[in-house]
This record gives sequence, structure tokens and C-alpha cells, in this order.
Amino acid sequence: ANGRIDLTHGGGGRAMQQLVEELFVAAFDNDALNQRNDQAAFDVPPEMLRGGRMVMTTDGYVISPLFFPGGDIGSLAVHGTVNDVAMAGARPLSLSAGFIIEEGFPLSDLKRIVDSMANASREAGVPVVTGDTKVVEKGKGDGIFITTTGIGVVPPGVNVSGDRARAGDAVLVSGTMGDHGVAVMSQRESLGFDTAILSDSAALHTLVADMVAATPDIHVLRDPTRGGLASTLNEIAVQSGVGIALRESDIPVRPEVKGACELLGLDPLYVANEGKLICICAPEHADTLLAVMRAHPLGRDAALVGTCVEDSHAFVTMRTAMGGNRVVDWLAGEQLPRIC
Amino acid sequence: ANGRIDLTHGGGGRAMQQLVEELFVAAFDNDALNQRNDQAAFDVPPEMLRGGRMVMTTDGYVISPLFFPGGDIGSLAVHGTVNDVAMAGARPLSLSAGFIIEEGFPLSDLKRIVDSMANASREAGVPVVTGDTKVVEKGKGDGIFITTTGIGVVPPGVNVSGDRARAGDAVLVSGTMGDHGVAVMSQRESLGFDTAILSDSAALHTLVADMVAATPDIHVLRDPTRGGLASTLNEIAVQSGVGIALRESDIPVRPEVKGACELLGLDPLYVANEGKLICICAPEHADTLLAVMRAHPLGRDAALVGTCVEDSHAFVTMRTAMGGNRVVDWLAGEQLPRIC
Ligand SMILES: Nc1ncnc2c1ncn2[C@@H]1O[C@H](COP(=O)(O)OP(=O)(O)OP(=O)(O)O)[C@@H](O)[C@H]1O
Ligand SMILES: Nc1ncnc2c1ncn2[C@@H]1O[C@H](COP(=O)(O)OP(=O)(O)OP(=O)(O)O)[C@@H](O)[C@H]1O
Ligand SMILES: [Mg+2]
Ligand SMILES: [Mg+2]
Ligand SMILES: [Mg+2]
Ligand SMILES: [Mg+2]
Ligand SMILES: [Mg+2]
Ligand SMILES: [Mg+2]
Repeated sequence: ANGRIDLTHGGGGRAMQQLVEELFVAAFDNDALNQRNDQAAFDVPPEMLRGGRMVMTTDGYVISPLFFPGGDIGSLAVHGTVNDVAMAGARPLSLSAGFIIEEGFPLSDLKRIVDSMANASREAGVPVVTGDTKVVEKGKGDGIFITTTGIGVVPPGVNVSGDRARAGDAVLVSGTMGDHGVAVMSQRESLGFDTAILSDSAALHTLVADMVAATPDIHVLRDPTRGGLASTLNEIAVQSGVGIALRESDIPVRPEVKGACELLGLDPLYVANEGKLICICAPEHADTLLAVMRAHPLGRDAALVGTCVEDSHAFVTMRTAMGGNRVVDWLAGEQLPRIC
Repeated sequence: ANGRIDLTHGGGGRAMQQLVEELFVAAFDNDALNQRNDQAAFDVPPEMLRGGRMVMTTDGYVISPLFFPGGDIGSLAVHGTVNDVAMAGARPLSLSAGFIIEEGFPLSDLKRIVDSMANASREAGVPVVTGDTKVVEKGKGDGIFITTTGIGVVPPGVNVSGDRARAGDAVLVSGTMGDHGVAVMSQRESLGFDTAILSDSAALHTLVADMVAATPDIHVLRDPTRGGLASTLNEIAVQSGVGIALRESDIPVRPEVKGACELLGLDPLYVANEGKLICICAPEHADTLLAVMRAHPLGRDAALVGTCVEDSHAFVTMRTAMGGNRVVDWLAGEQLPRIC
């Protein structure tokens, strides 16, 4: 109907059947999905038979704008969920995708998003095996929301968890901080500035696989998404009951990102990333892991940025470039609504 | 802040952390979720080590009203996803839950929904192991949307699929048709009528486990949700390439549901169910399965309602109570927006 989603596309009848068939199933195309059952069935992966563990994760994507330099809501929904699986040191197996679409949404935009999602999924080697399509009345949604869930398998012997940071551990990041957030903000008309910065949105599971292969005993992995490096480190500090001492001059931030942040009065440490990870490991493993990360295309700018310390308050602190010391606190509210 | 959700509750900072901790994690309370990692890790179930297969399914819940006689969006989101896992003949293992909440949504309603969800999950024995919380600006959502994903394991030797119906097979239903849809519609102010009908919303996995234990070779299982019995049978007919011949007088429909449908000009065969299943099996298994179903509290009104027939058009037809024959067609658009 004139190139827009209407309520029949979510109604459970023939119109929906056709949309699912011709748009979603055609794009995601894989054996499990092609069964067209209420659920996708697939074989148990070999690691599970050898003592691995299962993992499951979910995220809703409610971003604005839907398309941004370096990606869109579709690729982001795949990368974000693949990454949350990978942050267990796990191999991602498959994804589900639930779409909540607002009446009137252009079919051409939907197709662009689904194609991008299918591409990201194919590149990552993690198929979208099952999905759902709901349409809400105009004014009761915001274009499109996507909720992806991922499952994966942790290889036997790997035990990565946010509560395993210990005083003395090294804190590494896989690259520059703040690229995603700044790339998205550059697209918001209201902000009216333009940068050449692309989102870092990427699937990190092959990087993680290399790291785990080199050092199975990684303590913590986490991707600094909403709330950026600062928020994520505060979470880990509380979970593990340690302090974290950062060195500002060692934290990689692109000059363009630094510039944009100054313009906007933002701190890049609180700006979202979608293709970076934090790794916390025993100090004796830091060099090996840095080398492995730097050898991977997604870890070229990896750096050692700090150390875990004894601190019953679980504070994150930073020695600034000027030589002072400051607390890197939680974000009280939210800095940047709805960009990831 | 004054009992309503605001944007900070989805912002990734301390306010969100606190909401997640005190509301969601407290209610869903289980070991995997309590790890508080980006993903939940848990052991591989024994069936998988003995040749079982994995299943995954997802559904978004965008219903109105959020509370209805016999349930609410929270219990529905658990039952619906548990059921889609069970319709593979599988044992559900765990759930994820993604929440998209509109700014201004009452915290008391959220708590009621989450508690109901936690109860449904506990009763079913299927934990919510991981979740996500996003808040959208006022006017960009509709109170609350929940997307649940479920995973499960198909016991070795079980092979249930929508393409396995064969001419000659028996078509069974586990109980009365249309209860959920009518219960929900009775709550819509605009319809202004009142019935004593409760939604049938229920988790069917223990019923399925009994059926599979008695007859591992069930051909098809599917829950007739959106679009009701008629739409679901049309899907199966196409998938399997068979016709389906129903007998109207054998299809159980409560008199109150029949009455309400007449009032509203609806056909109960197209009205949604949330605690019923369709089972298609070889004719020689029909009696055993009917007996097993009737012995389970959720299958007391189980009935044999039709037969699969050779038909290259894959039509669903019905011998009416009056003795005529009619095609039970696909729904062109949608009959009842957003009730399941
Ligand atoms: N957006 C989508 N992307 C990929 N597959 C989809 C999508 N929407 C639906 N599907 C697939 O289509 C099939 C039917 O899905 P559908 O949602 O109609 O069934 P259901 O979940 O049992 O019904 P309901 O959602 O009404 O409860 C499933 O195999 C599902 O994986
Ligand atoms: N509504 C919820 N119900 C249950 N658990 C939740 C809910 N929301 C978040 N969680 C849990 O809180 C933890 C942190 O989730 P959060 O969404 O903040 O992390 P993330 O997905 O890595 O970040 P982001 O969503 O910003 O990408 C996870 O363990 C998650 O399972
Ligand atoms: Mg996440
Ligand atoms: Mg994460
Ligand atoms: Mg569905
Ligand atoms: Mg479903
Ligand atoms: Mg179903
Ligand atoms: Mg999340």
C-alpha cells in the first residue's frame, strides 16, 4: 500500500505473511529461519558437548536518527548483541530479531535497515534464526524499534565475569573512545555540526576469540556502550569491589572526537562506543593481550589505560593530563538520550 | 521521581542501575541474572548432551489494554514465548525480556507488570535470565512494549514441524477457541460490554511434555494466537501442502464467547488464543493424545476437530453446523489489532 507500513502488516494475516516472506525471510535467509515454524531449531554446537556453557543476552534499539555515519539501527542491533555475547568470552551462535514498526514507516527505509542487518549478520557469521513483526498505530511508536537477542557458547575453561577484577589487574581498551556517540550526534540536525567521524559499530567476537585463544584466563570483558567508558568501569568496579585508577593521557581519543566533545560540552569518557571493548586481566597477561589486540583490525589502537586498586568505595579515579586526580563518577541521569 | 518513569531510567547511568536492581532483578531473582553481566551464563541441559536440538523464538508484546481479565502484558509475554518454544515439542530453558517504556509510565503499573511476569516465569519454571531497559520520550511509545525471547531443547527423537502434516492426519485442539480475544475486547471501553470470560493465557509446556512422552512422533504443534485457529491452520496447510477439513460442530467454543462474537460481528475461529494448542498427528495416535490432553488441567476440553486431506490448493474448509461447506480463508488484513 503506497510504500508504507500499515496495520495489516502486523495483523497476523496474509499481508503480514507476505511482508515476512518477501522482506525479512528473504534477507536473513538461513536454514533455521526457512523452516517457518514458531521457533527455529538447530544443532547443539560442539563446544557445548565438551563442557562449554550457554550464554544469552538481549538489547532493545530505540535510536534516533536511524541512519548515521558508519551504520544504522539494523547493523547496530546485530553488532551490539553479538558483542554482548562475545563479552562472556563466548562464540555467538544465533540471533533473534523483534521489530516494532510504527504505522506509516516507509517500506524503503525498512528494506534498507533489514538489508543492513542481514549484511551485518552474514559478515559476523551469526544468523538471525527467528523473528517477530508488530505494527503499532501512528503516534504510538517512533519509526522502528528492534530488539535483538543473542545466544552463544563459552568455551570450556573460560570464565569471564564483571566480578573478577582484582587489585593489581591491568585495564585495557581495544581502541579510541567516543566515536559512535559523536558520529551519531553529528547527524542530529539540532546540533548543526558536521564531522568526518564514523561510528565504530562493529562485531567484536573474532577479536575476542583471538584474545581468549591467547589468554583463556581473562578476568573481565565489557563493551563501553551507553554511558561510555566511565559508566562501564563504574559498573565493573562495584561488581568486583575494587577501585580503578585511570591515566587520562593513555586513553585513546581521536582529535576530531575530542574537538567535537569540547564544542558540545561533553566528556568523551561518557560517550558511547559500539565497537570497542574493555579487558581486565592479570598484569602478567597485559602485554600478550595488547599484542593480540593490536594484531586484529578492530584492536589496532589498543592501549593499557589503568590499573585496578584496593578501594572499599569502588571509585574510578583518573590522573589527568594536567597532573591532577579526579573521581570519574557515575552519570546521574543520562547524557545522550537514545543514541545506542 | 514522583512515581513515574523518566528518561534517566533508561539512560545507562545510576538511575537506570537502581531501577534494574530494585525492580527487575529483585523480581526475576535467579542465579544467571544475579551475575549482572552483559549476558547470562548457565549450564548446558542434559538433553543437549544426549542428542537434543536447540530452539529459539521471539515475540514482541504491544497490546492494549495492558491489564485484562485473566492476565496482563507481563504474564502474556512469558506464556506466549514459553508456548512458542514448547510448540517444537521442546523443554523451555530460559527467557530474556527487553522493555521499551514510555516516559511518564506509572512505576506502580510497571511494578505490577514485572511482578506478574516474575510469577508467570516462576510458575512455569523458566527464569528470565537477562533483560534490557530502554525509555522513549513521551509520545514515542505506548506505555510499555515487552519483547521476550525463549530458548529450549528438543528431546532426542522428537521432530515437530509445521511442514509435517500429511493427508489422513488428525487435527486436535486442546480446548475452547477465542477466549483470550474476547476477554481482551471486553475490557476495551469503546466496546462497552462486559463478560465473565477470562483470557486462557497459560504456559503449555507441561501439557506438551505429557503429549511428547506419550507420542514422540507428533507431526505438528502450534498455538493459534494472532489470527486464531483459522489463520494458524492456513499457515500449516500451506507449509505442509495439504488441505484441512474441519467440522464446525466439533470445535469447542464457550457459549459466552459465541455470544460476544455474534454481538461484535466476529468469527471465533479468527479470535486469538493464548493458552491453547493445535496438534496434528497420525490418525492412530489421536485417541492416545486426546486422552493425555484431557488428563491435563490445560487440555480438559481437548477435541478432534478435523482431518488433513489431499489438496494442491492447501485450502482449509469447514463443514458447518448447518450442513454446508465453506472455505475458512486467510484474514486479508487484521481483525483485532494489538490484543496479543
Ligand atoms: N521480522 C521478522 N524477521 C524474521 N522472521 C520473522 C519476522 N517476523 C516473523 N518471522 C518469522 O515468521 C514466522 C511466523 O512468525 P509469527 O510472529 O507470525 O508467529 P508467532 O510468533 O507464533 O505468532 P504471534 O507473533 O502472532 O504470536 C516465524 O518463523 C518467525 O520467525
Ligand atoms: N528490564 C530488565 N530486567 C532484567 N534485567 C535487566 C533489565 N534491564 C537490564 N537488566 C540487566 O542489567 C544488566 C545491565 O544491562 P544493560 O542493558 O545496562 O547492559 P548492556 O546491555 O550491556 O548495555 P546497553 O543496553 O546500554 O547496551 C544486565 O545483566 C541485564 O541483564
Ligand atoms: Mg547490551
Ligand atoms: Mg554490553
Ligand atoms: Mg511472533
Ligand atoms: Mg509467537
Ligand atoms: Mg506461536
Ligand atoms: Mg542492555
